[in-house]
Amino acid sequence: MSTSERLIESTRELLWERGYVGTSPKAIQQRAGAGQGSMYHHFTGKPDLALTAIRVTAQEMRDRAEEELSAPGTAFERVSAYLRRGRDVLRGCPIGRLTQDPDVVADPALRRPVDETFAWLRDRLADVLAEGRDRGELDAALDPVATASAVVAVLQGGYVLARAAGSAEPFEQAVDGVLGLLAARVVPTPSP
Amino acid sequence: MSTSERLIESTRELLWERGYVGTSPKAIQQRAGAGQGSMYHHFTGKPDLALTAIRVTAQEMRDRAEEELSAPGTAFERVSAYLRRGRDVLRGCPIGRLTQDPDVVADPALRRPVDETFAWLRDRLADVLAEGRDRGELDAALDPVATASAVVAVLQGGYVLARAAGSAEPFEQAVDGVLGLLAARVVPTPSP
Repeated sequence: MSTSERLIESTRELLWERGYVGTSPKAIQQRAGAGQGSMYHHFTGKPDLALTAIRVTAQEMRDRAEEELSAPGTAFERVSAYLRRGRDVLRGCPIGRLTQDPDVVADPALRRPVDETFAWLRDRLADVLAEGRDRGELDAALDPVATASAVVAVLQGGYVLARAAGSAEPFEQAVDGVLGLLAARVVPTPSP
Repeated sequence: MSTSERLIESTRELLWERGYVGTSPKAIQQRAGAGQGSMYHHFTGKPDLALTAIRVTAQEMRDRAEEELSAPGTAFERVSAYLRRGRDVLRGCPIGRLTQDPDVVADPALRRPVDETFAWLRDRLADVLAEGRDRGELDAALDPVATASAVVAVLQGGYVLARAAGSAEPFEQAVDGVLGLLAARVVPTPSP
């Protein structure tokens, strides 16, 4: 990896572990094995480097979700695959955790990629659910937009509960809970 | 307020606004209008003061939830009242935000009141839902424990989405979504 790439990777890791407020330029340089001069040669400062790091992480998160949500299967199966994918739950979400960072939320440039990622995810899930409803797989009365927001919220809140408990169990319970509620809206297929 | 109370109140505010990592003993002293000697007279240090502050906030959160969850009404009405209570959504949850604080999660003493608060809330909601199911208000196939975890997760994740968007709208959508799913499990009352 180039010095610039090492700086970006180190920033991504530190933002995930310590958050923006808890990450100093010195800590980034140490982890990347780069000097101060080198960091300021490639980036104007911590906000510039953090913005680059957040964009890379956000793009990875979208690409991964898109794979599951555009896979073959019913709407319920795709939402289920997305929610049940193996996750390192106790580390939390690298994008969601940034919303608890006062300096990220207060800076429109840093908040933008976080906002866009969740807006994209809610829209994409709403599309999948609307498709399922229009195909007759899901109850016609289901609200795709509100349900999609609830699904994304369960995931983000599941991380919060898991980190509080020091265990993945409440995350899995919350996913079971929302999928149980959604399963009850699946229209039974008539037997042939 | 006594100096000790002012120190606790200032710590509660700063933990909510800046988190544990982002709150220095100096910032607490400045906000409380107390000197360093005074702070160390009343508390052994930042962890001790933070623990006291977290316990006070956690107790307030429980008392407030208990009021709504033990009110008269059906299980659905009580869960709905709890979720729809007016909240300063963009400030986030003072307890939930601590789970994104690496120094809180890494310290068993600081994590304990956070863990206990969410465990209590999940249990209490599960009781309300089980009661609703046993009274025949809710579908007999509803899983009270998993559904309760999903409800708490929607609230915590709703804060994450709202702070990302800089708007309460995704929080309200997520609450509408989970209540819409739960409403579909309410057993219709036979007309007299």
